[in-house]
Amino acid sequence: MDLLSIKDPSFLKGMSNKELEVLSQEIRQFLIEKLSVTGGHIGPNLGVVELTIALHKCFESPKDKIIWDVGHQSYVHKILTGRACDFDTLRQFKGLCGFPKRIESPHDVWETGHSSTSLSAAMGMAIARDLKKEKSFVVPVIGDGALTGGMALEALNHIGHEKKDMIVILNDNEMSIAPNVGAINNILGQLRTAGKYQWAKDELEVLLKKIPAVGGVLAATAERIKDSLKYLLVSGMFFEELGFTYLGPIDGHSYEDLFDNLSYAKKTPGPVLLHVITKKGKGYFPAESDKTGTWHGTGLYKTDTGAFVKPAKTPPPAWSSLVSETVRKLARVDERIVAITPAMPVGSKLEGFASEFPERMYDVGIAEQHAATVAAGLATQNMKPFLAIYSTFLQRAYDQVVHDICRQNLNVFIGIDRAGLVGADGETHQGVFDIAFLRHVPNIVVMMPKDENEGQHMVYTALNYDNGPIAMRFPRGNGIGVPMDAELHSIPIGTWETIKEGEDAAILTFGTTVPMAMEAAATLEKKGISVKVVNARFIKPLDKRMMTALLAKNIPLLTIEEAVLQGGFGSSVLEFAHDHGYYHAVIDRIGIPDQFIEHGDVNSLLEEIGLTTQEVVKRLTILAQKKQQRA
Amino acid sequence: MDLLSIKDPSFLKGMSNKELEVLSQEIRQFLIEKLSVTGGHIGPNLGVVELTIALHKCFESPKDKIIWDVGHQSYVHKILTGRACDFDTLRQFKGLCGFPKRIESPHDVWETGHSSTSLSAAMGMAIARDLKKEKSFVVPVIGDGALTGGMALEALNHIGHEKKDMIVILNDNEMSIAPNVGAINNILGQLRTAGKYQWAKDELEVLLKKIPAVGGVLAATAERIKDSLKYLLVSGMFFEELGFTYLGPIDGHSYEDLFDNLSYAKKTPGPVLLHVITKKGKGYFPAESDKTGTWHGTGLYKTDTGAFVKPAKTPPPAWSSLVSETVRKLARVDERIVAITPAMPVGSKLEGFASEFPERMYDVGIAEQHAATVAAGLATQNMKPFLAIYSTFLQRAYDQVVHDICRQNLNVFIGIDRAGLVGADGETHQGVFDIAFLRHVPNIVVMMPKDENEGQHMVYTALNYDNGPIAMRFPRGNGIGVPMDAELHSIPIGTWETIKEGEDAAILTFGTTVPMAMEAAATLEKKGISVKVVNARFIKPLDKRMMTALLAKNIPLLTIEEAVLQGGFGSSVLEFAHDHGYYHAVIDRIGIPDQFIEHGDVNSLLEEIGLTTQEVVKRLTILAQKKQQRA
Repeated sequence: MDLLSIKDPSFLKGMSNKELEVLSQEIRQFLIEKLSVTGGHIGPNLGVVELTIALHKCFESPKDKIIWDVGHQSYVHKILTGRACDFDTLRQFKGLCGFPKRIESPHDVWETGHSSTSLSAAMGMAIARDLKKEKSFVVPVIGDGALTGGMALEALNHIGHEKKDMIVILNDNEMSIAPNVGAINNILGQLRTAGKYQWAKDELEVLLKKIPAVGGVLAATAERIKDSLKYLLVSGMFFEELGFTYLGPIDGHSYEDLFDNLSYAKKTPGPVLLHVITKKGKGYFPAESDKTGTWHGTGLYKTDTGAFVKPAKTPPPAWSSLVSETVRKLARVDERIVAITPAMPVGSKLEGFASEFPERMYDVGIAEQHAATVAAGLATQNMKPFLAIYSTFLQRAYDQVVHDICRQNLNVFIGIDRAGLVGADGETHQGVFDIAFLRHVPNIVVMMPKDENEGQHMVYTALNYDNGPIAMRFPRGNGIGVPMDAELHSIPIGTWETIKEGEDAAILTFGTTVPMAMEAAATLEKKGISVKVVNARFIKPLDKRMMTALLAKNIPLLTIEEAVLQGGFGSSVLEFAHDHGYYHAVIDRIGIPDQFIEHGDVNSLLEEIGLTTQEVVKRLTILAQKKQQRA
Repeated sequence: MDLLSIKDPSFLKGMSNKELEVLSQEIRQFLIEKLSVTGGHIGPNLGVVELTIALHKCFESPKDKIIWDVGHQSYVHKILTGRACDFDTLRQFKGLCGFPKRIESPHDVWETGHSSTSLSAAMGMAIARDLKKEKSFVVPVIGDGALTGGMALEALNHIGHEKKDMIVILNDNEMSIAPNVGAINNILGQLRTAGKYQWAKDELEVLLKKIPAVGGVLAATAERIKDSLKYLLVSGMFFEELGFTYLGPIDGHSYEDLFDNLSYAKKTPGPVLLHVITKKGKGYFPAESDKTGTWHGTGLYKTDTGAFVKPAKTPPPAWSSLVSETVRKLARVDERIVAITPAMPVGSKLEGFASEFPERMYDVGIAEQHAATVAAGLATQNMKPFLAIYSTFLQRAYDQVVHDICRQNLNVFIGIDRAGLVGADGETHQGVFDIAFLRHVPNIVVMMPKDENEGQHMVYTALNYDNGPIAMRFPRGNGIGVPMDAELHSIPIGTWETIKEGEDAAILTFGTTVPMAMEAAATLEKKGISVKVVNARFIKPLDKRMMTALLAKNIPLLTIEEAVLQGGFGSSVLEFAHDHGYYHAVIDRIGIPDQFIEHGDVNSLLEEIGLTTQEVVKRLTILAQKKQQRA
């Protein structure tokens, strides 16, 4: 059928399983082709084609609430709810969002991006439904990886206790982003291999009937044995103990199994957990055979071979790689270095470290809170933990950073990956809050390098720093291609670097916006305005000496940061000026305004929010005029 | 024995169970007497007397790491490690901390205050031990309430997977702070009532042997039945499935049981969970019979009757009570209002709400992340959730506030209790970061009332606000005794209030520091300096009209806040001034400096950090001089 003509999922109602299977293939083909051009989360979506179709056939969205945990597996849902025609713009500026988005469709009842929120959201919706005395189904769809996140476990616990009607779909694809971690995964593994449990169960029930009734405790116990058979055999007891009716495991690519079990689940009161086994990348060979998570989310690829489209020339090293490989190099001489990642060994490029130091590398699963506090625990024992974590996911561990790491002033090195705008993943993934949520925390040092060479020295600095927590932000993507020093050295904490002298004004910036500052300064130079450019590589603490010198000169200052302005770096420059009585300082700030930043390529986003060379030139021209007026 | 003479726990080694029982009674008497004068966490500590003594007898602290989750139950540990003599200063300024504190003793290997961190810390320490090839025991002690916290579950999952040697003591006192919530508690309940499981197990094994061996699958299954008996009977399967060896439940007040099981645990490889049943308040009638948590932490009381020492005159209403009761009143006319608390129904004074609206009140257990996202889920369905949460615990839900509530711009009312300094609970509990971690989040409104009358109007404002999330901070303790309006009204968002006119300078402040500002202004008036005092009740958004008017007048401004200065309210005033080109504005800020604030009475703390009327007078005098110099 013509997928572009789909308006809503109602057309599914009259379709036979055979017709649905044809539709599944059409959707797969559509996804494989469209995503080869736009990139996107191909693996997870190919895995849930049948599941999504079955859900939309069995439930009445949006009256019934289908809630996609994480949300990168919502492409099929988007097709079925009338958005196939937007796939050419997927994850692009002003285009279709790669995650559920309420503004796009009434069928997107809950927005996600971060993992493990769906069960709590579902609980809120179920409470609301019951208080309003409405009838509807609440159906969160959560992956096995997301289930290791603390808030998902908090929610399972609460839902099981309250016995709210809810159908939780556990989409078990045996792999979250990286191969799964943790005991819960082992349990799911037992379930997966349980095989012919129904047959064994029947046989055992016959057998059990032969046990003589011995009265009293034992009779009751014999009953309990019988009741417990299904737990015993499929080990679904984990969820049953939490208060759920456990169904499954079933084949998530079989319409027959899906419809049978979904109908049964709909008739079952209280919380139901339907365990569905799916295969990431199903139906597309390169994605299906992926073992490491390369096909979780991809860039462009050739549909026939699955070969990734390589950039025309080899780019400079990826930031994640540079950082992890420098940590690895240092780990060869410092046995105390231990790397910790919350489910991002691939994204954080820790494979090399892991293969060289398997005993000093811990992937703790999607469990940022635990990851941060494990690092703190290690540091109490004089180890040197490197916590590799994306900026946006560090938000999950804010309290652990405050309460466990910084309050105890422990030597934890936090490598904050994907700091700043990340582009296509959009609102939920922009790493723009970290400065604002870290710089008010006592004891921590926060830094960001201007290029990959400074980056490697900062890694060295961090792992040789013995005075408390230290964080280094670095952006998504690749370095800028500078020559790399062979010898590493420490950068004195709280020191900035003048990278261009100037008399009329000064720019204070760091990281990705340094080139922008240099470009603007060059443009201004031509206009006769001489601008000093400072690499303010320590965001906390500031370089007090340089700040004082700059303020004493009384030239206008402009701060630039690819992070939120409210409470950010520029704000700390203002604080310093006023705290030290420089009340006449002309200080202006450029950065990310007080709004969530959508998806799109980073350049378009920067343009949209006015974080551009042009804007820097404009602001500095005005500031320099102010200085002249004053003089 | 003389408890004051104890230097370290080594004296326990030679003592018989009988002698230990005498010691237990001496310690209980000591605690009951000392805490009647200082206040403190009496209930939890009376419950762990035998457990703590047993741990210190069986393990070699500090080589072996005893880690107290939450930490308020560490008093007995403090006595046994040589700190009995400091109990007269418990929780007082410069006195003994109410939580483990590394600076106090090498036996305090991990600092706590917030719940559920001990398992992650233990994992870090166990990894360090094994990498260093050292031999020692790691023994986290965690309560059943703390086990519902997401990070504890993340840790259980990871520890079970890694099979690290570790002895987790589950201190199951059937009550965390409030009666426990959630399915995990139900499971623990089953364990508690399992009773004579050993006998039943033996009987069943005899019975099982009678099952004929039928070969193939069934034979294997019969084996599994046998293996599963202990799970079946005591339902310890929850922990066993996660990878732990489960021991217990045992009587935590019986030395015999404790020593038997601890010795067994020490010999068992991999992670062991020893389930210990204790009674909060054990040995002191009023605390032991407490059902609601009143004796969890107390003020002063009479040792003989357990009667609480009442203040000489009836204080104004407690803030928590005022807020919750106003919400309750509004809930009578707005059916959409639902209250959510993460395990603090008593602290947040929600008992009245709960009894009037049992179906609209959810205590989700120690699960702040889940609590925040349940509120978000409710709000998507046009409900009006009131999330009652302490400032310090809201830190745990930072990401949920950002990602789920604010990003989706949902109508959630966050009542931020215990904002500002909280006093005796100290570092881990000061509610001083909330402004800095909230004000950079787009869409949220943050406010704080100057008194309880304004407070009730703000609750009304919040529950009638339909444009996104709104938070109201309010302090620990009681109102200031102002008359209360009978009719409630909305305060226009982003409007401040001039409460005293003045020409030479202006103070911008809110909440608890308003009286300080008024007092300072009165003092300055006598010196001939006329100071305007503004109740800046909206911390975000600022009152743009008033800010512009103040800046246009070019009088010095002083901001005062009982919150961290870095990125705080004063910082937003600086941002506003510079963003609007008021580069000459003389703006000074008073607040909490960039350090963690210890325990002690709030007045001593304020004095220590210079947040006093005197300091306000001093600063304003200087600022006013600047203005005169300029004029």
